[in-house]
Amino acid sequence: MRIAVLTGGGDCAGLNAAIRAVVRTARHRLNTDVVGYQRGWNGILEGDSILLDNDTVRGVLSHGGTMLGTSRSHPDLLQRGAQPLIDQLRRDQVDALVAIGGDGTLHTTKMLHEAGFPVVAIPKTIDNDVFGTDVCVGYDTALTVATDAVDRLHTTAESHDRLMVLEVMGRHAGHLAAGAGIAGGAAAVLIPEQPFDIDHIADQLIRRHQDGRNASIVVVAEGATPIPDTIPEYDPVVDHWGRPRLGGMGELVGRLLAKLTGYETRTTVLGHIQRGGSPTASDRLVASTVGAASIEALASGGGGNLIGISNSKVTLRPITEIAGKTRRLSREQIDLLVPMTTAADMRRRSSNR
Amino acid sequence: MRIAVLTGGGDCAGLNAAIRAVVRTARHRLNTDVVGYQRGWNGILEGDSILLDNDTVRGVLSHGGTMLGTSRSHPDLLQRGAQPLIDQLRRDQVDALVAIGGDGTLHTTKMLHEAGFPVVAIPKTIDNDVFGTDVCVGYDTALTVATDAVDRLHTTAESHDRLMVLEVMGRHAGHLAAGAGIAGGAAAVLIPEQPFDIDHIADQLIRRHQDGRNASIVVVAEGATPIPDTIPEYDPVVDHWGRPRLGGMGELVGRLLAKLTGYETRTTVLGHIQRGGSPTASDRLVASTVGAASIEALASGGGGNLIGISNSKVTLRPITEIAGKTRRLSREQIDLLVPMTTAADMRRRSSNR
Amino acid sequence: MRIAVLTGGGDCAGLNAAIRAVVRTARHRLNTDVVGYQRGWNGILEGDSILLDNDTVRGVLSHGGTMLGTSRSHPDLLQRGAQPLIDQLRRDQVDALVAIGGDGTLHTTKMLHEAGFPVVAIPKTIDNDVFGTDVCVGYDTALTVATDAVDRLHTTAESHDRLMVLEVMGRHAGHLAAGAGIAGGAAAVLIPEQPFDIDHIADQLIRRHQDGRNASIVVVAEGATPIPDTIPEYDPVVDHWGRPRLGGMGELVGRLLAKLTGYETRTTVLGHIQRGGSPTASDRLVASTVGAASIEALASGGGGNLIGISNSKVTLRPITEIAGKTRRLSREQIDLLVPMTTAADMRRRSSNR
Amino acid sequence: MRIAVLTGGGDCAGLNAAIRAVVRTARHRLNTDVVGYQRGWNGILEGDSILLDNDTVRGVLSHGGTMLGTSRSHPDLLQRGAQPLIDQLRRDQVDALVAIGGDGTLHTTKMLHEAGFPVVAIPKTIDNDVFGTDVCVGYDTALTVATDAVDRLHTTAESHDRLMVLEVMGRHAGHLAAGAGIAGGAAAVLIPEQPFDIDHIADQLIRRHQDGRNASIVVVAEGATPIPDTIPEYDPVVDHWGRPRLGGMGELVGRLLAKLTGYETRTTVLGHIQRGGSPTASDRLVASTVGAASIEALASGGGGNLIGISNSKVTLRPITEIAGKTRRLSREQIDLLVPMTTAADMRRRSSNR
Repeated sequence: MRIAVLTGGGDCAGLNAAIRAVVRTARHRLNTDVVGYQRGWNGILEGDSILLDNDTVRGVLSHGGTMLGTSRSHPDLLQRGAQPLIDQLRRDQVDALVAIGGDGTLHTTKMLHEAGFPVVAIPKTIDNDVFGTDVCVGYDTALTVATDAVDRLHTTAESHDRLMVLEVMGRHAGHLAAGAGIAGGAAAVLIPEQPFDIDHIADQLIRRHQDGRNASIVVVAEGATPIPDTIPEYDPVVDHWGRPRLGGMGELVGRLLAKLTGYETRTTVLGHIQRGGSPTASDRLVASTVGAASIEALASGGGGNLIGISNSKVTLRPITEIAGKTRRLSREQIDLLVPMTTAADMRRRSSNR
Repeated sequence: MRIAVLTGGGDCAGLNAAIRAVVRTARHRLNTDVVGYQRGWNGILEGDSILLDNDTVRGVLSHGGTMLGTSRSHPDLLQRGAQPLIDQLRRDQVDALVAIGGDGTLHTTKMLHEAGFPVVAIPKTIDNDVFGTDVCVGYDTALTVATDAVDRLHTTAESHDRLMVLEVMGRHAGHLAAGAGIAGGAAAVLIPEQPFDIDHIADQLIRRHQDGRNASIVVVAEGATPIPDTIPEYDPVVDHWGRPRLGGMGELVGRLLAKLTGYETRTTVLGHIQRGGSPTASDRLVASTVGAASIEALASGGGGNLIGISNSKVTLRPITEIAGKTRRLSREQIDLLVPMTTAADMRRRSSNR
Repeated sequence: MRIAVLTGGGDCAGLNAAIRAVVRTARHRLNTDVVGYQRGWNGILEGDSILLDNDTVRGVLSHGGTMLGTSRSHPDLLQRGAQPLIDQLRRDQVDALVAIGGDGTLHTTKMLHEAGFPVVAIPKTIDNDVFGTDVCVGYDTALTVATDAVDRLHTTAESHDRLMVLEVMGRHAGHLAAGAGIAGGAAAVLIPEQPFDIDHIADQLIRRHQDGRNASIVVVAEGATPIPDTIPEYDPVVDHWGRPRLGGMGELVGRLLAKLTGYETRTTVLGHIQRGGSPTASDRLVASTVGAASIEALASGGGGNLIGISNSKVTLRPITEIAGKTRRLSREQIDLLVPMTTAADMRRRSSNR
Repeated sequence: MRIAVLTGGGDCAGLNAAIRAVVRTARHRLNTDVVGYQRGWNGILEGDSILLDNDTVRGVLSHGGTMLGTSRSHPDLLQRGAQPLIDQLRRDQVDALVAIGGDGTLHTTKMLHEAGFPVVAIPKTIDNDVFGTDVCVGYDTALTVATDAVDRLHTTAESHDRLMVLEVMGRHAGHLAAGAGIAGGAAAVLIPEQPFDIDHIADQLIRRHQDGRNASIVVVAEGATPIPDTIPEYDPVVDHWGRPRLGGMGELVGRLLAKLTGYETRTTVLGHIQRGGSPTASDRLVASTVGAASIEALASGGGGNLIGISNSKVTLRPITEIAGKTRRLSREQIDLLVPMTTAADMRRRSSNR
């Protein structure tokens, strides 16, 4: 049985650990090397692959990014369907595929599975919003970077009595913003799951300052949105999927809060440093676990599944049930924001509207 | 409703984050301050407490250790039973208690619960072996420290073609050793769940060196033990609970492997730096979550439970079912060690004996 | 002898370590407590101070920011001169002052010294450009944060074959940009000391990609400027000191390089996280050294000096000679950029113009 | 001109950064590749070398250890003298050598220089005690690791009211112990430069605890020694150079302080994790600087020198003047320990004896 592996979508920490586990487990369990496709699905379409053995993956465990390269999906992938992929996989004598990726990758994986090709998916995204698993490869490292940024902003906020706004990633789900906000002790957290009321947040910050706390951190997910029609200058331009166009939400929130509170305010957009760097111990452990389990699944006929982790155990969930869904913060998790930050009152008020 | 909190047993990272969440949630949900007992259960027996409010817990989120102090249980706690504790709690007008701790703390908590006093427990231990939860406060930080140590030993092992042995904590369970071993890419991991065969490990290392890999890391849990009668000089002195006395397993393994392989070998005992320091983002998040949930549980009549996390959700499990049990590595988790390290073959051979 | 201390200008890591050393050394050498003025020079003008003793500074060694607060100088400080400051210092029975700060603080310190008040200055700035010392409090921490960002961007650049532009602080000097660029292995570094030729940098990056290196990092100091008239859209708006207005240089460089090279390009502005967070060991050591030495200097009549470090030794340099000067990268340090990055060739070409 | 490079002695962080700078600068300035000898001087004696070019050193900047391997000097190196080395260098058509190392390496380098072979030395040692430079490659990373350990021990010491003893490296000089002790806020620091009086240290700790500070950290350099005849059980076994045999000083101090103070005491021996791991930004910068400067020196006839850093500038000092000397803590640096720790009073008392 000859196995191939690829990484698709945006890069994150832990991908190399997952690739290494796939290769080492394939050698150990199936006594076979692994074909690695370059730059995501493009590597299959273009027949661009390398052979991966234990030597090739030596030392990559602690390296960020992906040794195979990655890319957003090839433009005409969806139009052309599974057949060109399957043709090339056959040419390369590949019997089964491990696809490491997020949303887009799951979509293509589902297509392959429905066309009868044995494939499993490993969830990776710093947004941690893949459905059907508790944790995605890359999230813990991004959470660590974002929390470190909140820690650093605290000391400068307190030295200058400032309001500091930090924009982190998270288009559809607030796991990263809420995680870093709670772990870092932010005063408020704005998440995609809960449209925000900027006036109320400003009121909360003013009350907080009146209590003698002159420094505050506000964490904003890039996908957070205001309650409709509450911010005249907010222009919800939509992309071609009808989703609000991202960009600048942290800057907008910073500008509005500065005006509404009168406090000295600074905004930081964390950007790409959330994706990169050496994976945390936890990300390496998760990646090694699901990487090894992906081979076990393929070896025992478990194709068509997402290899996730739930309750510290490996779980298999049918890709057909998962593709297209998003795991958002639960009501319980949002409620936890309340005593940990001032975001809660915001929530209550906004739900009265 | 007046709530008290204490921390018992060995310290770890994240305790302050849990205390802060207890205090802030008590203020937010119940509009009450919290009584903090000093130095674990001793604080109750000696009537030594302080008042905790939002100001008291400001800034402690990122601090290691516990602002309340902690201690191994008071010597005559078990003999005297729950009554002296309850008497003092009543004198202090405390209606319910949050006890943050491990094994010993759970035992006393159970005693209190059975005597009818409302109490919940929050699991903490760097060993990660409290039954009834997936994750314990303090584990992720210890895992991070231990993995960082493995990373550092790798570079010195490779520069000198050495065998490096690292002893980490873990008396009854190998979560920390296996976690750091997998995340750090150790050649072998020795855990309490699986008696080891030193000759076989030496053989594996020799074969590995013959394959051109002249540097190897072996991670040893302090509670790892050899297969009975395989090491003449191993003296399984037992403590007064009948458990093998800890201490020196890393040194013993290092000495034996040096002799059996002939390789230059160095041993490092990681020791107390595993416990301390600023908690990781994940530990702060876990601690904040279970800290907040402990107040919710007490407020809604959920006394007598361990407040754990399973599947990213808060779980309540009756303390009476949990106290005295240990969560060990599962067979699946041990099997994962195989392709990631050479430990697996060791396992198979040892089980043939 | 009664000593006061203040921190002025932008915050950075290590200020608390310096304050702690001032307080502990004053207690040890002079057997006196210390007056701490709040929010920089404003604290003197407004008579806002606290008493600092060994207890007050306990535990602050590892904390970022400044426990005294800080501020850009009070607007009418320069107009009113030293007298109002001296009047308040006398009212508070202060005999001598330790001022921790950068440019602006040195200016006011000089004013005080010339008016006859005993004062010493401790250099702090993440830009590392205070004249008369080799190293400033706060630089090493900022260098560590910026280098970590370069490391992280590397992995994402390599995974996606991207050009990543990172803007770091540094208005007048390129120590931070050059330091992080060399330590992180950037392909090019743009610094204030050396106007850049954007076409030539683009050529260098293209040649580099032609050699098979498809990922490149370009570090841009916020104060870097193009060779005059080489970039039509560059608008060198000047502030009221006649200095080019800062802001957006990273974004501009990123936009231009994307156009000139055709490579996928992303820009990150590191911003305020460079200032904050726990100081590195080196920053704590430097801050403790100059903090202690500042008391020794005042106790032995060394008023009017900047307390710096040169050649691992404490040095005293007259403030009157230092204020208003900037320590820039030397020609030797700039030359070092050449083999470490591609910046060197840029230099040679630009100097031919 | 053909250049060779090797790394000798114990490994540390930053060696790869230095090698990379040597290779890149040789390519840039001299348009030549570099010969890399394996495992220190053994590589020359055994004719074991590899060719190093820009591709070979790609990505090693942030890696700990040395890609060339290293070793303590070959046993019969000193007896056989420079000739066998020069013979092999000639056979390999090597014109000049860069030797990166500490004490032992300097000795051999001096021998080569005196025999007329062009050679320069780059100082590396985590002890930071090479004479003729302010800073050695590897020190800053070791300082960071040791300070992090002190930080971690603080939180556990405070949680349990314990005395924690930490043994760090430093056979002849206390730079690392003093640096980590000051940066970490230790209560006392024991260094080779200053024999210690264990009774006095115990008295200081008792007085400190009487002042309400129940947690203390004591940092012990491995080469610290007691004042002669003050500790009956101290056995100053000497090695064959007449130097006290190392090992166990931390454990001995911990045992004695536990007995003398009666406080709960724990000892940690930091060991090999001080050497390894990714170099700090500062170590990479220092290593890159002296690596590049070593080529400049050889290219311009500067053979026979140690390439150091002093006052942020590259310095050249004749190896013949430096070999065999040790840079110890200065009196001023030792005095700084006084207000920062309790070690100072110890000093005064001991000097009265």
